[in-house]
Amino acid sequence: MMTDSSNKLWSGRFRKPMDKAVEEFTASVHFDSRLFEHDVRGSIAHARMLGRCGIILAEDADKIVSGLQSLLEDWRAGRVQLDPAAEDVHMNVEKLLAERIGDAAGRLHTARSRNDQIATDIRLWVKDEIGTLNGLITDLQRVVADAAGKHLDTIMPGYTHLQHAQPVLLAHHLLAYFWMIERDKGRLADCRRRADVLPLGSGALAGTGFPIDREFLARELGFPRISENSLDAVSDRDFASEFLAAAAIAMTHLSRFAEELVLWSSPEFGFVELDDSVTTGSSVMPQKKNPDAAELVRGKAGRVFGDLLAVLTMQKGLPLAYNRDLQEDKEPLFDAADTLRGALTVFTKMIETARFKADRMRNALKGDFSTATDLADYLVRTGMPFRRAHEVVGQLVAGCIASGRDLFDLTLDDLRKLAPDATEQALQVLRPEESVAARSVPGGTARETVEKQLEAARAALGRSHAG
Amino acid sequence: MMTDSSNKLWSGRFRKPMDKAVEEFTASVHFDSRLFEHDVRGSIAHARMLGRCGIILAEDADKIVSGLQSLLEDWRAGRVQLDPAAEDVHMNVEKLLAERIGDAAGRLHTARSRNDQIATDIRLWVKDEIGTLNGLITDLQRVVADAAGKHLDTIMPGYTHLQHAQPVLLAHHLLAYFWMIERDKGRLADCRRRADVLPLGSGALAGTGFPIDREFLARELGFPRISENSLDAVSDRDFASEFLAAAAIAMTHLSRFAEELVLWSSPEFGFVELDDSVTTGSSVMPQKKNPDAAELVRGKAGRVFGDLLAVLTMQKGLPLAYNRDLQEDKEPLFDAADTLRGALTVFTKMIETARFKADRMRNALKGDFSTATDLADYLVRTGMPFRRAHEVVGQLVAGCIASGRDLFDLTLDDLRKLAPDATEQALQVLRPEESVAARSVPGGTARETVEKQLEAARAALGRSHAG
Amino acid sequence: MMTDSSNKLWSGRFRKPMDKAVEEFTASVHFDSRLFEHDVRGSIAHARMLGRCGIILAEDADKIVSGLQSLLEDWRAGRVQLDPAAEDVHMNVEKLLAERIGDAAGRLHTARSRNDQIATDIRLWVKDEIGTLNGLITDLQRVVADAAGKHLDTIMPGYTHLQHAQPVLLAHHLLAYFWMIERDKGRLADCRRRADVLPLGSGALAGTGFPIDREFLARELGFPRISENSLDAVSDRDFASEFLAAAAIAMTHLSRFAEELVLWSSPEFGFVELDDSVTTGSSVMPQKKNPDAAELVRGKAGRVFGDLLAVLTMQKGLPLAYNRDLQEDKEPLFDAADTLRGALTVFTKMIETARFKADRMRNALKGDFSTATDLADYLVRTGMPFRRAHEVVGQLVAGCIASGRDLFDLTLDDLRKLAPDATEQALQVLRPEESVAARSVPGGTARETVEKQLEAARAALGRSHAG
Amino acid sequence: MMTDSSNKLWSGRFRKPMDKAVEEFTASVHFDSRLFEHDVRGSIAHARMLGRCGIILAEDADKIVSGLQSLLEDWRAGRVQLDPAAEDVHMNVEKLLAERIGDAAGRLHTARSRNDQIATDIRLWVKDEIGTLNGLITDLQRVVADAAGKHLDTIMPGYTHLQHAQPVLLAHHLLAYFWMIERDKGRLADCRRRADVLPLGSGALAGTGFPIDREFLARELGFPRISENSLDAVSDRDFASEFLAAAAIAMTHLSRFAEELVLWSSPEFGFVELDDSVTTGSSVMPQKKNPDAAELVRGKAGRVFGDLLAVLTMQKGLPLAYNRDLQEDKEPLFDAADTLRGALTVFTKMIETARFKADRMRNALKGDFSTATDLADYLVRTGMPFRRAHEVVGQLVAGCIASGRDLFDLTLDDLRKLAPDATEQALQVLRPEESVAARSVPGGTARETVEKQLEAARAALGRSHAG
Repeated sequence: MMTDSSNKLWSGRFRKPMDKAVEEFTASVHFDSRLFEHDVRGSIAHARMLGRCGIILAEDADKIVSGLQSLLEDWRAGRVQLDPAAEDVHMNVEKLLAERIGDAAGRLHTARSRNDQIATDIRLWVKDEIGTLNGLITDLQRVVADAAGKHLDTIMPGYTHLQHAQPVLLAHHLLAYFWMIERDKGRLADCRRRADVLPLGSGALAGTGFPIDREFLARELGFPRISENSLDAVSDRDFASEFLAAAAIAMTHLSRFAEELVLWSSPEFGFVELDDSVTTGSSVMPQKKNPDAAELVRGKAGRVFGDLLAVLTMQKGLPLAYNRDLQEDKEPLFDAADTLRGALTVFTKMIETARFKADRMRNALKGDFSTATDLADYLVRTGMPFRRAHEVVGQLVAGCIASGRDLFDLTLDDLRKLAPDATEQALQVLRPEESVAARSVPGGTARETVEKQLEAARAALGRSHAG
Repeated sequence: MMTDSSNKLWSGRFRKPMDKAVEEFTASVHFDSRLFEHDVRGSIAHARMLGRCGIILAEDADKIVSGLQSLLEDWRAGRVQLDPAAEDVHMNVEKLLAERIGDAAGRLHTARSRNDQIATDIRLWVKDEIGTLNGLITDLQRVVADAAGKHLDTIMPGYTHLQHAQPVLLAHHLLAYFWMIERDKGRLADCRRRADVLPLGSGALAGTGFPIDREFLARELGFPRISENSLDAVSDRDFASEFLAAAAIAMTHLSRFAEELVLWSSPEFGFVELDDSVTTGSSVMPQKKNPDAAELVRGKAGRVFGDLLAVLTMQKGLPLAYNRDLQEDKEPLFDAADTLRGALTVFTKMIETARFKADRMRNALKGDFSTATDLADYLVRTGMPFRRAHEVVGQLVAGCIASGRDLFDLTLDDLRKLAPDATEQALQVLRPEESVAARSVPGGTARETVEKQLEAARAALGRSHAG
Repeated sequence: MMTDSSNKLWSGRFRKPMDKAVEEFTASVHFDSRLFEHDVRGSIAHARMLGRCGIILAEDADKIVSGLQSLLEDWRAGRVQLDPAAEDVHMNVEKLLAERIGDAAGRLHTARSRNDQIATDIRLWVKDEIGTLNGLITDLQRVVADAAGKHLDTIMPGYTHLQHAQPVLLAHHLLAYFWMIERDKGRLADCRRRADVLPLGSGALAGTGFPIDREFLARELGFPRISENSLDAVSDRDFASEFLAAAAIAMTHLSRFAEELVLWSSPEFGFVELDDSVTTGSSVMPQKKNPDAAELVRGKAGRVFGDLLAVLTMQKGLPLAYNRDLQEDKEPLFDAADTLRGALTVFTKMIETARFKADRMRNALKGDFSTATDLADYLVRTGMPFRRAHEVVGQLVAGCIASGRDLFDLTLDDLRKLAPDATEQALQVLRPEESVAARSVPGGTARETVEKQLEAARAALGRSHAG
Repeated sequence: MMTDSSNKLWSGRFRKPMDKAVEEFTASVHFDSRLFEHDVRGSIAHARMLGRCGIILAEDADKIVSGLQSLLEDWRAGRVQLDPAAEDVHMNVEKLLAERIGDAAGRLHTARSRNDQIATDIRLWVKDEIGTLNGLITDLQRVVADAAGKHLDTIMPGYTHLQHAQPVLLAHHLLAYFWMIERDKGRLADCRRRADVLPLGSGALAGTGFPIDREFLARELGFPRISENSLDAVSDRDFASEFLAAAAIAMTHLSRFAEELVLWSSPEFGFVELDDSVTTGSSVMPQKKNPDAAELVRGKAGRVFGDLLAVLTMQKGLPLAYNRDLQEDKEPLFDAADTLRGALTVFTKMIETARFKADRMRNALKGDFSTATDLADYLVRTGMPFRRAHEVVGQLVAGCIASGRDLFDLTLDDLRKLAPDATEQALQVLRPEESVAARSVPGGTARETVEKQLEAARAALGRSHAG
């Protein structure tokens, strides 16, 4: 008698039940239950195919399909309880099915293995998840574009090295993030395209001897292609690594945007006031209003990097084909997807409700020398080589700093000591508004250029709707 | 009226409730509830101190302490339900306390902040966790030492580059892992010692103006030292990074051991048979008996590396003092600790029940040339320089391979063609038993040396009992 | 006089020379000199454009262009020495140019900045590098396909969990790697497409006020598109992250293949003999022949993961636009590219010269029960539900193991005790050749299917030639 | 004849020379030459021991020792050229020795292997390197303590969430970094202690059959202990992982400090002016003065994390004993050590020459509500429960913000509406100076407490001198 381990569906050759600690350590149902719907969808397609190809009786196939459909309904209604002792989601589904339809359930696993089954389930999940993330990125892009649209006349310091570099439009600054996350959509779409290959039919590792119809399975489950090699198909987790890499890169973007919200919320910058609804207070300091959500987005970047590393490292040095190590793909995937979803959602809320303070931004440009380049460029236009012009203006700036003056305090005479050909126009180019307006090169910060950029952004949003 | 956000304990200056998505994104109670007991212990000590120092009335302190004690009892009995809307474990505890003892609960947070409070809670947790892990490592060491004790006469190929290098005792091989994980204990102990500093009393960041007694708090909570700088104390997560680094290194050790169990369980090696109770079968292939637990230990190494990276990256570039990013320390810590615990536990089971196959190991030495070094060493003892001896034996091996012979098939005449001074003893040194016995240098694989090593190992175990 | 720092091209406003330690710490010329050619190509295009747009005089433009061309020739001939004190490759090029053509050199930097310049240089480099890597991957694919073509009749154990699972063709096994690295080409191509956007013309961060022609620059330098936003263009390192992610995933594939070469080279497996030309010996053990190159490929996977994480972490939390942190993109990029190149090259050599041992592989199937699934599948075809068939065969295997028998030792009578409907054919399906032949589903291991797979592989190679 | 590969010292059994690409891929001499001195020191000790134990003739031992000593002198004088074709530093040393002393050189490698040799070399290097780093950390601590000593009366905003939280002393803020890096010293010291175990005498993996004296070797090379298990000794790279983990944690500290220097250098903060000697200018913007060195320290944190992960990942799943993957320990180690050294050095320069702007810091406190906690604490002292006091002050702050007032603008009557028991003292506690002075709890920011902290810091510096 081997009743002890009879709850395992593979216990034929085993003489002892599994140790409890090992059972707990190897179990996956507490996280792979998230694939319940994908698993049932895959099983419905599989059962239909088995019936259609005459591998099981049509009536058994029908029983299985309707059993699975009722199970899915109950699951969606929250009426299904999984059994942690039944290892994983696949065994749970099969067990629940057997309780509903009896012996026919035992025919469902014909011509497949958990190895090609789980590979199919996760690919279905990844494809769905990318759809969701695409929508959330688009939502954030829309509020960014809207905010940019409202700030086509807001001038602020542009920074490099966190020093004032040259004046830019706030609209221009915000749109930089639009394009960053547009690339994230591209990477996710490429990942989805490459993941869109059906592994089902690869069996445990070598294919199957049953006359199955993989093209039918692919059509049923919405895959445009089937895998070329069964050994690769059951052990390939590239789509997980690639998804995680795309998510990690997206998190670098959000972490940068978050850093700016944190910086701009500080009293020293004061460039933005985040809404009460997206900030928190202190348990001790009654005056505090903290940009916690932005900080957490920044802090959670590392978490997604960690998820990526976990999955890469797990795959290092694994021989063909399936190894149990591969089970470690799911928790990092789920964690990264949830983190990115949450981060995108709160970011959309933050930007939607943020109050950008145009006055503080404009005031910050006072006495910051950020139009010094414009003066140098002006001198170049008078014929001075760039390197010389740069040096001349550098000395003027040094002189101003030493004497506590601003570039605006310079007279034409001051200027002509170092740049004899300078005219009144030299003083004109120092105004931030002039500086911004001058940068009308495509991609530059001049208002009309940024308007075109905004149109391009909205056009991209239109395409992503259609897509 | 601001009733909407009245469930937050810091809502005084806020005019709008928190957005639901933001609330969910920033909440931590679903994971920091794990610190419930540590939080209550910290609060009991704090309340006692407040009463003792006359900062709150003695009767209020008593009320708080007994309220917290009853709460702790109910928690341990599973009778406490936390409120996810109450942000974190601290707010939950305070809220539950208020329900029990009324207004006095509002005095508990005097002279502290969530910043020093959470820093204290996690340190208490880390110290406890290291105690547990220390015990689990010791358990594994004990079964490794026991297995070594049973295999003091089992000879197997020693490998470098996964090629047969020189014969070794299985006992020697197993004990290598004993010393690896002995170092893990050392690293964890160092981490605990460095973490053993009380941050409580640092307030939000600057200390507190109330006349608290930090030394009393330290004594109550079992910390030998108090922190030197309040800004550092509330933002220091070194102990988390260090714990994770120690856990990551421990996982590299277990992943190596796991790789060997997987290799040795393969039909090609056949050096070990893992017990049915620690292996699993296949949903498709009836003959399979898979070392899943070992594979998962190996696969989970990446996960702990990821946890470490997450926490390091989260801290990168954070200005002083507390930032919400720091909340991201806990999930990686918990995950790494659970993973390491589980891996140690299943490893102890695997080794305890493993059947090492001495015959297969001994047979693997046939015709493997693994005593060629002994022949070279012999030639050196006859006066030949080592480099020349190495070359001579290399040519003998090449000749044997070319003619399909073994070193044992060589005659003294064959040998003398290249090494004229060789005697009969040359053939003697080629026996694996001789080879092993010869390596009696401290740390070597000779039986009596390994016996001494085993004694040293047992002595170390004795010390860790006492410690 | 500020002659001390006069070697810096930005020293106008500075009163003190740079500290030597700081100079050394911030210098990049020791690694970015690798971009010398790309930098000069970019500068030639820029000078041409400046002349064409009338921003500098045509004769100055001509002087600059021919000066740069002669410099490039000298560089390629190894006649150029860089000055470490001149910070970076850009300043070196400009300095060298000034030595050759005098003052006109000072006009080259008009209307650009090192920020858009370096962004252009690295993109040029990444595009070239991906071309090279694509060629190396194709080389490896070709030798893999050739080896597969030679082993269409070589049967070996297929593994899951490193246990014998089902027999497969060696050709099938090898082709699994063909498809893995085919995906790597896809990822690199996607990376190149997304990197193929010209940042030049973005200036320091805000665009430029000079009437430059970015479309001309793009055509000259072979970029199909120009960047949309100057702030994004100078601070975007997505292409670096994406390249590193693609390289990291490629290294997981090579590490898996390497692990198999190491395993298969062990005496226990003995499935392959690597050529003397790709293996190394031991300084001590004369008999050793070690698969060092394969081990290093495996070991170097971690290095590329580290490069990826360095670049992701570096970008975490960086505000717009350029920050000096971004300089840390180059060394990881170069290191990962070199590592992947080297790994691909040695892998091609290893596979090209490897001797696969068909006899050892076929012998390994003896008594390994790896056709048990075929028996279960047979029983299913007699009408038994799959779950029951799996259980029956599991019990037969357990019985054989207990009595030291093989499945081939079973008689029809033995079989009928558990499976009354079994016929002689049951014993037939147990032959590995039958088992392989049966798996003729697309992607399966049957010979004719693998032949089709090989055709598909060769077709893919043809496309990559054309591409 | 096998002259082709005769440059390899292990070519006895090989029939073909190594492929050039493989030779290049596996070579290590371009980086392990950094261990030249350690290798020679180890060889001198080994030769002495061989002679002393009678394993080689005393005259041969003497020849070897003096040959190595002269080689070392020449190396230090830059007169030694290594041969890249000779694989690694060990083979180079032996070859150079042979050129100097002839045949006796061939006896040096008796009773050891490259496996125990390289393990010894790196441990020697790690121990030296930790000594150097300890000194550099101490240097930085000293300038931090000095800067703190000068700013015992400088009041600045203390931040949490980058919001003004409570006023602190600049001295207190700076000393936070003192204690952070003090812990780094502790971790490095622990690493050194654990690395301080001699592996030499472990041979290739199994020990040696020659009657060597490991205790003598240990004394000669300054190791207090010898390794317990030869298999572990040749494959243990824990000290590398542990060193890298300590370096990674140290880099998180420096990245935080760097972030603050960058923030504080921004015009918005303006809390510090970094010296011209540690900052750089822009190639385009003449006014720029950029904190590049600080940015690079921040950016290089990721690099050291990458080094750590490279070494952890490399070790994942490696079977015993030595595998060539282990060669990948050195470049990450060297890179991390160099990065940390450089970062410490430039940091010391930056802090030493930094001009902290006390006025800007003090002014930043105006109207920032950062003493709101003091008011709440005051109310608590009048008997109000803390939670109520927090709420009352929160409402006062909200009222002030709404009406554009500061807390200082409140009258006692305003206050008494919400806190009837308030007296004139309530207004007193709002002064930043009062707030700072009140926090006199150990570790707090009150001047006398910070003075004690500074004494403790200086005492710690004294101890590290002695140590």
